[in-house]
Amino acid sequence: MPSPAALDAFVALLGPDRARSDADTLTLYAQDETPGRCLPEAVLFPHSHEEVAAIVRLALEHRLAITPRGAGSGNVGGAQPTPGSLVLSFECMNRVLEFNPADRLIVVQTGVVTDDIDRLARSAGLMYAPDPGSSAYCRIGGNLAMNAAGPRAVKYGVTRDHVLALRAVTGAGRELRTGARTSKYATGYDLTRLLIGSEGTLALITEATLKLVPAPERTASFRLCYASNTAACAAVSRVMQQPVVPSALEFMDRRSIEAIRNYGAAEGLPPGTEAVLMVEADGPAEDIPRQVAALENALQGEGLLELQTGFTPAEIQTLWTARKSLSHAVKKIAPLKINEDIVVPVSRLAELVAAIDALGTLHRLPIVSFGHAGNGNLHVNLMVHPDAAEEMARAESCLKELVETVLRLGGTLSGEHGIGTKKRKFIPLEIEPETLGLMRELKRLFDPQGILNPGKKLPD
Amino acid sequence: MPSPAALDAFVALLGPDRARSDADTLTLYAQDETPGRCLPEAVLFPHSHEEVAAIVRLALEHRLAITPRGAGSGNVGGAQPTPGSLVLSFECMNRVLEFNPADRLIVVQTGVVTDDIDRLARSAGLMYAPDPGSSAYCRIGGNLAMNAAGPRAVKYGVTRDHVLALRAVTGAGRELRTGARTSKYATGYDLTRLLIGSEGTLALITEATLKLVPAPERTASFRLCYASNTAACAAVSRVMQQPVVPSALEFMDRRSIEAIRNYGAAEGLPPGTEAVLMVEADGPAEDIPRQVAALENALQGEGLLELQTGFTPAEIQTLWTARKSLSHAVKKIAPLKINEDIVVPVSRLAELVAAIDALGTLHRLPIVSFGHAGNGNLHVNLMVHPDAAEEMARAESCLKELVETVLRLGGTLSGEHGIGTKKRKFIPLEIEPETLGLMRELKRLFDPQGILNPGKKLPD
Repeated sequence: MPSPAALDAFVALLGPDRARSDADTLTLYAQDETPGRCLPEAVLFPHSHEEVAAIVRLALEHRLAITPRGAGSGNVGGAQPTPGSLVLSFECMNRVLEFNPADRLIVVQTGVVTDDIDRLARSAGLMYAPDPGSSAYCRIGGNLAMNAAGPRAVKYGVTRDHVLALRAVTGAGRELRTGARTSKYATGYDLTRLLIGSEGTLALITEATLKLVPAPERTASFRLCYASNTAACAAVSRVMQQPVVPSALEFMDRRSIEAIRNYGAAEGLPPGTEAVLMVEADGPAEDIPRQVAALENALQGEGLLELQTGFTPAEIQTLWTARKSLSHAVKKIAPLKINEDIVVPVSRLAELVAAIDALGTLHRLPIVSFGHAGNGNLHVNLMVHPDAAEEMARAESCLKELVETVLRLGGTLSGEHGIGTKKRKFIPLEIEPETLGLMRELKRLFDPQGILNPGKKLPD
Repeated sequence: MPSPAALDAFVALLGPDRARSDADTLTLYAQDETPGRCLPEAVLFPHSHEEVAAIVRLALEHRLAITPRGAGSGNVGGAQPTPGSLVLSFECMNRVLEFNPADRLIVVQTGVVTDDIDRLARSAGLMYAPDPGSSAYCRIGGNLAMNAAGPRAVKYGVTRDHVLALRAVTGAGRELRTGARTSKYATGYDLTRLLIGSEGTLALITEATLKLVPAPERTASFRLCYASNTAACAAVSRVMQQPVVPSALEFMDRRSIEAIRNYGAAEGLPPGTEAVLMVEADGPAEDIPRQVAALENALQGEGLLELQTGFTPAEIQTLWTARKSLSHAVKKIAPLKINEDIVVPVSRLAELVAAIDALGTLHRLPIVSFGHAGNGNLHVNLMVHPDAAEEMARAESCLKELVETVLRLGGTLSGEHGIGTKKRKFIPLEIEPETLGLMRELKRLFDPQGILNPGKKLPD
């Protein structure tokens, strides 16, 4: 718990409005979108890189931990305070520092909302490609911390692929400038990508130079209903083995469809539908028919019940209705979802989906899986009642077996949500001891006192 | 100088054929494609990751430095032995460990020749996108060490963008597995990209899992002749501000054209030509006409003397003749080229080219510039006589002013060649002291005894 002198020092730095320890503020910042909460000691709202550096220096002096926070939209506990920590919210660092369409780049403070970056880019015919589900309110700093992605990643890549340079402050108070403003860089060590995905445990990223790409002129959407998970997974595999890369390739499994049906949002689905794919193509208007033909051809096959193509924004919206209802629908199954974010090579997706089905049966748990099939990235939701101890124990066993299955299939623990507090314990199953040991030493090098986001990413 | 016991230990590990210290072998491995040479103490040819790990352990035990080497095709001295060092050649580590078209990946030992990877990929309709100029003989390990690129980078990105996972041995003998086989990864720290571009100073990369992309069905090439550098740079800027990204956008400046003329290879160029662009578009056959039209439109403008489009392989080859003759042509100007590899944001290219012209006049030096204009990446060649001390002194001043100009324009020291021994002294002009300090600490963490490629990348 910080001394009154420590709190005074933060108030002296930022003023009372931006260094708060009133009960209401502490309550508001006690959790992110992950179950579990812990009151921080204070919440700080810096305006600039220089203020972040000053906060780190004060935190070092007073031996206080910092929990960095964008919008708090993460679901692995990455922005959940640890006991005695300060929350450093990037909300007030929301300035666009430079918008440069000629060089296809934008320089932002890391509290800018992701969609605001994309919107500004679109005004010049460009786009910011990564599109996490929370893009309407999440902040780019959180995207950088987690190496966030979204449906478009299958064609455009993840956050990591769209960053040119960073400004940051390490846990030792060292101020960094990484990378360059250019599309090629072979000068220093690649600190840019070392910080991306490090979940605020190495350094606090204060400013980012992001790459923009030409915005596609037109988008075409498909919804495909299949008679089984297997049929849908086979179609995914066919799509990813022909040259037209879709701009989205989303999958909903049998349990997802069941949940949508029970929620009453399945009226448009033909009888017998057990799995659905949502597919998008994008590009120049002239080229869309060619892409649509190639994708339709790959999507055809045994078990396809219906293929619907939507072209107007209204048609596209209709096609996506079932998908959008899903997060509400799953809440009806059980009060808590244990949300995994696992990835396998796309050729192993069918095996993964079958294994998940078997695990659900074995452990008597509803498991709803959907996600970014083109990347082999599934969100696997174990639906549980948190007060039912025996059920929770079954969920725990099931989770461990799921992770083991994923690793056996050549996969990884997280594709876009990160590790946070929730998945740390599984890290030693994936990362070999010598490699993990080096990661721990990297942590110590960047943050020798361990003040940056303790208890996250790496296991203790 | 290693003790006889040390040499015996390497012979015991690898056998006399693969642990050599005869004069012929030492002479052969005393240099790379950079001027300057130094005999190593021995040359080692491991077959496997395990042998590389054993070599590092022996080197630590006997306190010997290791100079890693792919094909020795680098031109910054990255593979040049330092006094007393062992050369570790990856030539015999040239096995493809797995070729997996379904998951669009290939796993290789790092001594495989880059073009061999691409050739295998093409057999399944895929390609390995990075295409350094030396791809016919360079080895993928060198590409990884330098974060190599080539003409296609403007559309497809650099080596860094095409790697999923690595196996490596640090200078402390620690064996690493980084990344995953999946197209998304948000699990551990991104050691993969930290090693890429680290020039063998942190770890020796033994195996790489590379990403493959669909091979384009067809390529269209253009050659454009402009009346001035300015007119050509303006065209580059127009191309990079419209949505069709070319698969190559190569520039040759006035001095390059002069060199080609003097070499007698300019017969096809219209009179008054002072700068040339070579442009390629690639994609599905059906989409090529649209791309060609958009690019032609952007390439038109004041100072365009001639636009030629080639479609058959023979036509394409004709178009590239002048470009291919360039490296021979420049050798006629002076015996030594001091080859820079600088990058500026593409909007600053015209300023850079004008500044280079002015520097050449000021310092009375022929400077020939050409390269990957779509990335703002120029190879700037100061042509000198190494024995003319006064001229070399002028070249030295000119080089420093060139680097200062590049940095003033928001650029970086190297786009694809790396730093090696040749550009280390300029690093402090670009990288701030606190960031550089952290890079030095990273080096110490990975390689505490400093045995991996000493004297490269970071300044002393």
